[in-house]
Order: sequence, then structure tokens, then C-alpha cells
Amino acid sequence: MSTSNRLLIIGGVAAGASCAARARRLDEHAEIIMIERGPDVSFANCGLPYYVGGEISDRAALAVQTPGSLKSLLNLDVRTGCEAVKIDRAGKRVEVKYLADGRSEWISYDKLMLSPGASPLRPALPGINDGRVFTLRNLQDMDRIVAATEEGMRAVVIGAGFIGIEMAEQLRHKGLSVELVELQTQIFPQLDSPMTALLESELRRHNIGITLGDGVARFEAQENHLRCHLNSGKVLDADLVILSIGVRPDTELARDAGLELGPRGHIVVNDFMQTSDPSIYAAGDAVQTRDRVIDSSVNVPMGGPANRQGRVAADHIFMADKARPYPGSLGTAIVRGFEVAAGITGWSEKRLQAAGKPYATVTVNDQHHAGYYPGAKPLSFKILWEPDSGRVLGAQATGFEGIDKRLDVMATAILGGMTIDDLCHLELAYAPPFGSAKDVINLAGFTACNRRDGLVRHITELPTDPQVQIVDVRPQPLAEAFPAPANVINIPFPTLRANLAKLDRTRPVLTVCAFGKMSYFAARLLIQEGFDVKSFSGGLKANVDPRSPAKMPTP
Amino acid sequence: MSTSNRLLIIGGVAAGASCAARARRLDEHAEIIMIERGPDVSFANCGLPYYVGGEISDRAALAVQTPGSLKSLLNLDVRTGCEAVKIDRAGKRVEVKYLADGRSEWISYDKLMLSPGASPLRPALPGINDGRVFTLRNLQDMDRIVAATEEGMRAVVIGAGFIGIEMAEQLRHKGLSVELVELQTQIFPQLDSPMTALLESELRRHNIGITLGDGVARFEAQENHLRCHLNSGKVLDADLVILSIGVRPDTELARDAGLELGPRGHIVVNDFMQTSDPSIYAAGDAVQTRDRVIDSSVNVPMGGPANRQGRVAADHIFMADKARPYPGSLGTAIVRGFEVAAGITGWSEKRLQAAGKPYATVTVNDQHHAGYYPGAKPLSFKILWEPDSGRVLGAQATGFEGIDKRLDVMATAILGGMTIDDLCHLELAYAPPFGSAKDVINLAGFTACNRRDGLVRHITELPTDPQVQIVDVRPQPLAEAFPAPANVINIPFPTLRANLAKLDRTRPVLTVCAFGKMSYFAARLLIQEGFDVKSFSGGLKANVDPRSPAKMPTP
Ligand SMILES: Cc1cc2nc3c(=O)[nH]c(=O)nc-3n(C[C@H](O)[C@H](O)[C@H](O)COP(=O)(O)OP(=O)(O)OC[C@H]3O[C@@H](n4cnc5c(N)ncnc54)[C@H](O)[C@@H]3O)c2cc1C
Ligand SMILES: Cc1cc2nc3c(=O)[nH]c(=O)nc-3n(C[C@H](O)[C@H](O)[C@H](O)COP(=O)(O)OP(=O)(O)OC[C@H]3O[C@@H](n4cnc5c(N)ncnc54)[C@H](O)[C@@H]3O)c2cc1C
Ligand SMILES: CC(C)(COP(=O)(O)OP(=O)(O)OC[C@H]1O[C@@H](n2cnc3c(N)ncnc32)[C@H](O)[C@@H]1OP(=O)(O)O)[C@@H](O)C(=O)NCCC(=O)NCCS
Ligand SMILES: CC(C)(COP(=O)(O)OP(=O)(O)OC[C@H]1O[C@@H](n2cnc3c(N)ncnc32)[C@H](O)[C@@H]1OP(=O)(O)O)[C@@H](O)C(=O)NCCC(=O)NCCS
Repeated sequence: MSTSNRLLIIGGVAAGASCAARARRLDEHAEIIMIERGPDVSFANCGLPYYVGGEISDRAALAVQTPGSLKSLLNLDVRTGCEAVKIDRAGKRVEVKYLADGRSEWISYDKLMLSPGASPLRPALPGINDGRVFTLRNLQDMDRIVAATEEGMRAVVIGAGFIGIEMAEQLRHKGLSVELVELQTQIFPQLDSPMTALLESELRRHNIGITLGDGVARFEAQENHLRCHLNSGKVLDADLVILSIGVRPDTELARDAGLELGPRGHIVVNDFMQTSDPSIYAAGDAVQTRDRVIDSSVNVPMGGPANRQGRVAADHIFMADKARPYPGSLGTAIVRGFEVAAGITGWSEKRLQAAGKPYATVTVNDQHHAGYYPGAKPLSFKILWEPDSGRVLGAQATGFEGIDKRLDVMATAILGGMTIDDLCHLELAYAPPFGSAKDVINLAGFTACNRRDGLVRHITELPTDPQVQIVDVRPQPLAEAFPAPANVINIPFPTLRANLAKLDRTRPVLTVCAFGKMSYFAARLLIQEGFDVKSFSGGLKANVDPRSPAKMPTP
Repeated sequence: MSTSNRLLIIGGVAAGASCAARARRLDEHAEIIMIERGPDVSFANCGLPYYVGGEISDRAALAVQTPGSLKSLLNLDVRTGCEAVKIDRAGKRVEVKYLADGRSEWISYDKLMLSPGASPLRPALPGINDGRVFTLRNLQDMDRIVAATEEGMRAVVIGAGFIGIEMAEQLRHKGLSVELVELQTQIFPQLDSPMTALLESELRRHNIGITLGDGVARFEAQENHLRCHLNSGKVLDADLVILSIGVRPDTELARDAGLELGPRGHIVVNDFMQTSDPSIYAAGDAVQTRDRVIDSSVNVPMGGPANRQGRVAADHIFMADKARPYPGSLGTAIVRGFEVAAGITGWSEKRLQAAGKPYATVTVNDQHHAGYYPGAKPLSFKILWEPDSGRVLGAQATGFEGIDKRLDVMATAILGGMTIDDLCHLELAYAPPFGSAKDVINLAGFTACNRRDGLVRHITELPTDPQVQIVDVRPQPLAEAFPAPANVINIPFPTLRANLAKLDRTRPVLTVCAFGKMSYFAARLLIQEGFDVKSFSGGLKANVDPRSPAKMPTP
């Protein structure tokens, strides 16, 4: 071991096991002790919902490594059922307790790694200790939930973040009836609300009941089931309840040891994952790191950051100067609900608003690959950028196929400090089964630059001012079959040039269409004919399940 | 029209129609004339093979726009069956010939756009004018091929670039017997040979005969069919032949007009698509542009560049100072062959070698999403970078799922000037159905940095020197079932620490495994035990169809 010879790791799953694995590759002779309170190390938390639902049938597949395999592969001293209870920083030692026999001992360290993760929130609500109220963090939680589920039972899932959505989907997949309850007025609250509409309708289409803007107030045991009383007074009867309302970092040990914590209890680390005590590192759900988009601190409790942060810590411990910093987190997240996916990278509109940051945004709708090739599925794609510089701040996508791809490209673009001009000219892979000559990301770049260059002004809500002439440029059959929710004049785009006389030049015009493209075309035409015009960005169908019978308008 | 009032466009498909469409949006009152030799404008060349194969059944879907729709949507004056025959630069006019009646006229222009595309190569080989030898560029070519195909016939496809591969796949899909012939010693010659192995085996699995390193010398008409004589003397009998050996730019007009051409006959343009005559623009397959990776000129005859270049030209004509430059082309390309996809972005190894540019490369193998979630499919991923700066120069990927995604991320990373260190920390979307906590791109970044930091030395070919001890660290059953093609000692990785005595410390060691990961782990171990060791990069299975019965080794 180059700079120290015993690395002690508290918490043996994503960040901890990754740190241990990298440490061993960097130093074959270091002594690496990994202690873990639970019976398992190195398991796939992210897979737990899919085992509950039966999509993953092999429980052993969830244990990516076992203490035995970590011994034989990495020569680690793994101690499960062993809890760290106290850190003595001055003495560079940790008191641990073996849960099987209650025995305690002090283990000294040269370097200490804290990767204790986070625990599901369990607020002190009346009735919450009922055995039918579950949270999901580890294999034991999972086993308990599986034991409690039988086809046809009633499940209530409280909290519609990504774990809640996955659990709702999987319980439904297993045949349970499912009610999903969310305090905010949308599911998947990381996203801006319109980008969750398709996913919400998909969950409803699969008969998941969704209650928004409501929280659970208390649980009441009935003879054979549990009654969930919501804040609104609404009552949901359940055979089991999944509580998935967020996590809080497991940082009491760090706090007691006097390590610096952030405002929400996360361990403060530098770019090499060092805490305020340079002999102590921390990584994963328990820490706050640099935000990659806007200079600030952020906690991103996700598997990727945990794994990579653990690795950075090992690098700094064993490679010293050669270690490269952790560049910060973006907050990339994705969730699937049946056929629909939705996700985000970087900052959302509401987060930018709340932080008072200037931003601009457009949403464009397109298909996931060339429209002329069979199987093209619609998707909706939103970007946010910094008005002055054009630098991309965030992106969201929802649809059926290729959602992960667009998010990954955008995550890369954000890390590269790229601008809306750069998005115009991303040269993405195009053959008919895979993409389009102009991908939706290029189109978003075009649209953003058009906005920036003053070629078009967008609005995102239909005006109520009767002075505004709303011009629906969709083909007449479409306009009739799916009327706009406002008083409109239908002038199909191809006839617009011949029908300018139908419009009053003294009154403002708003152009609308299905997806926001023809209304842009119309706005360009009318602007140059001297009208005061805006385009309804995103279109009338943007928030509607695109599998509805109305076909995409041409073009 | 702000700076000119008549835009004349020669060639009305990708670059030309895109230029016209953007021009109209920028200037409602400009006069825009688009002339096209063929009967169709604005059609999906890229979809042609899929109509031949029957995957696209609606021929009309291939006409993205028609002269009529371009008139009603964009108020364009579209003249099909009209060929430009001469450019009079001094007079700013073009002589055109109407093919229907042979009539000629001069059309004057303020700005001229050249988007004539490229034509399939048709070398002067004996017999090549036989009516059974086809090329594919437009709907008429396609119709002729469709008319010539009947189930059970024999097709020979000459040239295994992406069009040749698509045609081979689609003809096979339609039930023809297919022989694919390629002059180079690999299919899809844009890629480095190992990255095409899976695709090649997939084509063979579907009973496509493949002849590599051989070209066609002459065609000989037989009583009822055509005989293709290859350079090697090999003979293939065919009922139809598809010639897909590349394209040459249609730039005689430009040459005759004295416009500057590049060494291979492409029109030279600046970053705003202006030719050496500032009133004349050019875009698409006919031009050479800046290479985005390495300072040089390049022609990338693909749909995305053509569309976007056409748009840049319109911007420069109508927005003047506000126009943003075309940043150059990367050469992103992808092809599908049945279940397998393969593609590239940026520079290949052989291209870097030929240009004498310094580079380093690694290939890693992984799965397209979390291994514990059902349906994970193997993929192989190669990156190339500049040794001094770490800047990424290119990437290639092949596998079953998620190939387009990895190429798109890498195209974005290259445009962003990103390095191998950046790849380590791309925060890509991860939920079990979509990705992994450490995506294969992150792993490639890790591996590249490990190489750069001297943690491992790789070799890509098994040595013949008997002095080298080749240590196969795969599990014994796997090593026995699929023996390495060399004299090896099998020491499964978990037992390596206990078996160091089996190795001679005075002789060099090469570690091998299935995918290159365990051999890296073994190399790290042995290096630190004092051995002179290299790891066999990519692994023994890298070039083998991963659907073979051998399971992935653990881990
Ligand atoms: C159901 C579920 C689904 C998820 N899905 C995704 C997903 O799709 N994508 C994604 O990116 N992320 C997902 N995550 C999040 C991801 O699993 C976490 O971000 C990641 O596991 C965090 O890693 P960690 O090492 O910081 O913490 P953990 O993985 O939680 O590991 C911490 C370990 O430390 C142990 N520990 C704590 N305190 C002590 C102590 N004092 N002594 C000894 N041991 C201690 C704990 O028992 C625990 O096992 C999901 C999480 C859950 C629960
Ligand atoms: C079968 C096939 C499959 C393809 N697949 C893909 C793919 O999957 N992905 C991809 O990115 N690219 C693909 N391409 C390439 C892509 O289609 C071209 O890069 C693109 O069409 C080039 O656009 P262009 O406007 O430069 O030329 P073209 O599309 O070729 O258009 C040029 C037009 O100009 C006309 N013309 C030429 N000279 C004159 C003249 N003197 N007077 C009047 N008219 C003239 C021609 O008739 C022609 O119609 C494919 C091409 C083919 C043929
Ligand atoms: C299992 C676990 C210990 C693995 O740690 P690990 O060994 O670092 O990770 P991997 O098995 O992915 O291997 C990565 C290593 O192999 C190398 N590697 C991977 N594929 C390679 C290839 N084809 N060729 C060469 N090297 C390769 C990587 O470079 C990396 O080594 P490095 O860190 O020294 O650079 C850890 O990831 C873990 O516990 N995971 C489960 C828990 C978890 O992540 N939960 C949250 C998400 S569900
Ligand atoms: C059909 C063709 C003329 C279309 O040209 P186009 O109108 O520029 O292209 P699109 O229909 O994709 O529309 C793009 C325009 O709509 C805008 N747009 C697209 N979706 C939008 C949305 N949802 N909201 C707002 N604007 C949108 C874009 O910004 C762009 O406008 P801009 O260039 O003024 O910024 C041309 O692409 C073509 O001929 N294609 C077929 C030939 C071909 O490409 N062959 C090779 C590949 S197969």
C-alpha cells in the first residue's frame, strides 16, 4: 500500500464495494476490510422492484458479489452483520458491533471510507409501524414484500418518484391492484409536469389508480387490511403499503464524529471524495458533491455516481497525484412504466425557477426514427439553456423508444459544456431503423436557435384574451376530430397564404397545430406578412397519449 | 429576400430540398426555383433498400414531399425532369433542359445552390451494361430492382459498404439467395476489421455467402442468367447483380464552371457552404467540408450532413451575419444486418494509421444493460484517442441493442472535444431496463485511463514466442470447452493468488480471459507480484458470436 496499509470501509454495496474493488486492483497488498450491517454486500438495489414483480426470477442474480466471491476475487476481508457504531478520529479507529453475538471491537484504519448510503424515509405517522407498511432498500425488505404479495391483493404505493413508479408497475405486473399516491401534483417530481403526462396516462391505462397532490396522514388497521387516510380525507384500503417517499442519508456516525455535513445532512466532500478529515473519505448516497451544471452542491442518490465516486476515492488513496477528480453530478434519471419511459438530465425548469436562474426552454415532438420506416414512435423532448451563453442546462424526454439515448446524448452534451448551436450539428447515427437525418435533438437545437435569433416567439399556454386570433393550421379533419380547447379559426397550413384576408392585421395572432412544427411554419409566414404572431410551442397533442387514433399531421 | 431575390437550386433531394425549405421560412417572399433531373424530389434514399426487401410496403411513404406538397407548403417553384447543363457564372445564369420535350432555357439567379449529390460508381467492366446489373440511388432504380426480384432468385451484391449490406439483408429477407462480394478483406470497410466480425457472422448465419478480398472482373451473360467472374477466378451465378461499390460526386457542372474542386472531385466550400464563387453555394454528397476530428478535408456522403449543410447555406444566404458555420463532419455511420448492428463515429484505427497520426485504442466488451435484468445482450465497444491530450478521436460499436446509443454519445463527446477522462464520468441514464451503473462507455474510459496511467499494458494478438507464459484465467470448464488457440496454462482467476508458484518469474506473462476484464484483474495482481505481464485486450471471445453456448464468465 503506497500511502497507507489498512483501508476500512463502512457499507459494502455500491460505493463501498466499488471502492474496495478498485483499491485491490491498485494495491494487491493493502489490507482492505469492508464491514456491512446487513447480511449482503454488493447487491443490485436497482433490481429489487423487478424481482418483486417477477421480471427478475433469479434472486441470486441480484447478489452481484458475495462475501465469498469478494474474498476469492479481491482478497477482501468482508464482515457482514457488522455495524460501525463509533468513529474515533483522533485514534483513527472505528468501533464495530457484530450483530450475531453483540460483540464489539475497535478496528483501526489508515484510511477510512464511509459509504453508508441512505435509508427510506419513514415519518412518524399514526399506524406507520403496522407490519403491512413496507419500505424497499435491501434484499430483506424485498423478501418481506414478496412474501406479502399475492395476486389480486390491493397495494397502495405512497410516493411516485422512480422507485414508487417502478414498484407500482411491478406490483401491477404481478396482478395486484395498485393505487399510487403522490404529494406533489405530478408523478416523477424530478421532471417538469408536462413531461410526465404520457407516463401518467400509461400507468392509468394499466389500471393503476393515481392520486396527486395528496399525502398519507395516517394508517388504520382494519380487521383484515390496512386503511390509508390521506390528507384530503380520501381513504384507500390496502393489503400492503409501499412507502417510497424519498431517502435520508445514513450519516449519524459522520455527524457524531464531527465531520462537516451539508444543510440536509449529507457528508461534505472535496473533488477527491475526502471529508473534512483528510483520512476519511465518503461516497454514494450519503454525500453531497459539486453540481455539474450550476455551481452549487448537490446530492444525487443514484447507482452510477455511487460506483464512480467509490472508485475516485480509491484512486486518491492509492494513486495520490495521479488521481483525477470527481467532476460532479448531473442528476440523470430514467424510469420505465410499461411501454413508456421518461427521464431527465441536468436541471428542470422548476428547479431553475426556484433557484432564480435565467433560462429558456423549448419542447419538440418528433419520432424516434425515420417516419417512413415502420415502427416509428413519437417522443417528446425538452431542453433548457442559459439565455446569454446558449449553454445547455438540462433536458427531459418521454416516449416509447430511444428515451435513454436522447438523455445520454444530452448528459454528454451538458458535461461537454455544449450550447444550443452545438445541438444543431450533432452528427448522430442515422439509418432508418435507428434514427432520422435530423434527430429530435437537432430539431430542438434548431428550434432553440430560432427562438434565440428572434425568428419565432413561443407561448406554452393558450391565451384567454379574446383579442388574440388563434389560428389552428392543422388539416381540417384533424382539427374537427380533435378540436383545440379554445375558440380558433381553422386555416390548414397549405391554404394559409391564400387566406390571409381572413385574419385581422390589427390583432395579435397565435398559431397552433398538433406538434408545434406547422404552427412555427405558419408563424414564420405571418410574421413576414406583417402580423404580430406567436407560435404555440409543443402543440396541442404534446401532452396526449400519441397512440390515440389521430394520425400525425403531414408533414 | 434580404440580400438577393432569386435562389436557384440544382438537385432537389436532401441538401437541396432542405435548403429550399429553410430558405422559405427565412424569406416568405424570395423566389425559390428548385430543379431536379429526376421525376421525384425530396425522397428518402435511405429507405430504398427496405422497400426492395418489403419491410417498407408503402412506396408513397418514401416520397417525403412531392412537387405539389412543396408548392402548397413552401411555395416553391419545383421543376422535375429538368436538368441543369451549364452554369454561366459571369451572367449569373444556368442553362437547363426539360427532359420531356428537350426544350432549353437560361434561368438567372442571385444565389445558386448546387446539391447534385453523387452517383453510384459503375466501372467500365466487360458486361457491366447487362440489364441485370443494377445500382440503387433513386426510386426508379428501386422499381427496376423490385421488378427484377422474385423469391428464390440468385442475387450477387458487389460491395459490402452499408448500402451493400442493407441490400444483402433485404434481398435475403425477401427470400432470394444472396452472395456478397467485397474487395477489401472485411465487410463494412469504414470500420476496423474486428468490429465487423459479429455482423459478418450474422450475415452468414442467415445464409448470405460472403467473399472477401475479391472483386468482380467481368460479367458474362449465360442463357438464362449472368455469370460474375471475380478477380480470383471464382465464379458466381446471378439472376441479378447489385453494384454498391461507392459513389462519385456529380460535379461536372461545377468543374465546367471553374469552381474549385478537391482532389477527389468534390466541390470545395467554406464553413458557410460557399464555393469559390461567393454567389454559389454547395452542399451534400457533392462537397468536401472540414473534418471535425482532425484538421483536414472530408466528404461524408450521408443524409444528416446533407440536410444540415443545406440549411446552413440557406442561413448564410438569408441571415447573413446571423448564420452559424457548419462545424464539419464526423463520419457517423451505422448499419443493421438482421439482429446485429455495427457502426462508427470519427476516425478508425486504419485511417489513423494510414494518415500517420498518433493514437491509442482499447476495446471493451460488456452488456447493453444491467446483467441481472433479463435480456442483457453483449456488445463490443472500441475507442481511439490522441495519446498526448487524451482527446477522443473515434469510436466503434457492435452488438444487438444500444449500438446507436453508444455511437451517438461518442459523436457528442467527440464534438465536445472530450477526453478519456471525461468518458469515465459520463452520467448516463441508468435503470435496469436501460443501462448499467457503469456503462460500457465508462468502462472504456476506465480502461483507457488505466492504460495511460501505466496500470496495465495490453496486447491484441496472442504471441507466438514460446518464452511467453500465457495464463488463461477463465473458469476451468469454460477454458476446457473453448480452449484458447495457443498453448496456455489455465489458472482460474480466483485461484491465481494461491498458484503464483506455477509461474516462472523470469519469463514474461500474458493473461487472457473471455472478455479482457479478468485478464486485466490478473495482470494487476501479477504486476504487483513482480511479474512482467501484459493483458490480452478484448478477450478470446471478442470476435466470436456471443450467442454461442459459452456463458459469460463470472464476473
Ligand atoms: C429499490 C431501489 C431502486 C433503485 N433503482 C435505481 C436505478 O434504477 N438507478 C440508479 O441509478 N439508482 C437506483 N437506486 C439507487 C442506488 O441503489 C443507490 O444510489 C446506491 O445503491 C447507493 O450506493 P451507496 O453505496 O451509497 O449506498 P447503499 O447501496 O445503500 O449501501 C450502503 C450500505 O451501507 C450499510 N451501512 C450503513 N450504515 C452502516 C454502518 N454503520 N455499519 C455498517 N454498514 C452500514 C447499509 O446496510 C447498506 O447496505 C435504487 C435504489 C433502490 C433502493
Ligand atoms: C440506397 C441508399 C441508402 C442510403 N442510406 C443512408 C443511411 O442509412 N443513412 C444516411 O445518412 N445516408 C444514407 N444514404 C445517403 C444519403 O441518401 C445521401 O447522403 C443524401 O441523399 C445526399 O443528399 P444530396 O442532396 O447531396 O444528394 P441526393 O440525395 O443524391 O440528391 C441529388 C439530386 O440532384 C439531382 N441532380 C444532379 N445533377 C443534376 C443536374 N445537373 N440537374 C438537375 N438535377 C440534378 C439528382 O437527380 C438527385 O436527385 C443512402 C443513400 C442511398 C442511395
Ligand atoms: C460488484 C462490484 C464490487 C464491482 O466492482 P468493480 O470490480 O469495480 O466493477 P466491474 O465488475 O464493473 O469491473 C470494472 C473494472 O473492470 C475493468 N473492465 C471492465 N470491463 C473490462 C474489459 N472488457 N476489459 C478491460 N477491463 C475491463 C474496468 O476498467 C474496471 O477496472 P478499474 O476500476 O480498475 O478501472 C460493485 O460494482 C458493486 O458492488 N456493484 C453492485 C452494487 C451496486 O452497484 N448497486 C447499485 C446499482 S444496482
Ligand atoms: C422534406 C424536407 C424538404 C424537409 O425539410 P424541412 O422542412 O427543413 O425539415 P422538417 O420537415 O424536418 O422540419 C424541420 C423544421 O421544422 C422545425 N421543427 C421541427 N419540429 C418542430 C417542433 N416540434 N416545433 C417547432 N419547430 C419544429 C425545425 O426547427 C425546422 O425548421 P428550421 O429549419 O426553420 O429551424 C427535406 O428534409 C427532405 O427533402 N428530406 C427528404 C430527403 C432526404 O433527406 N434524403 C436523405 C435521407 S433519407
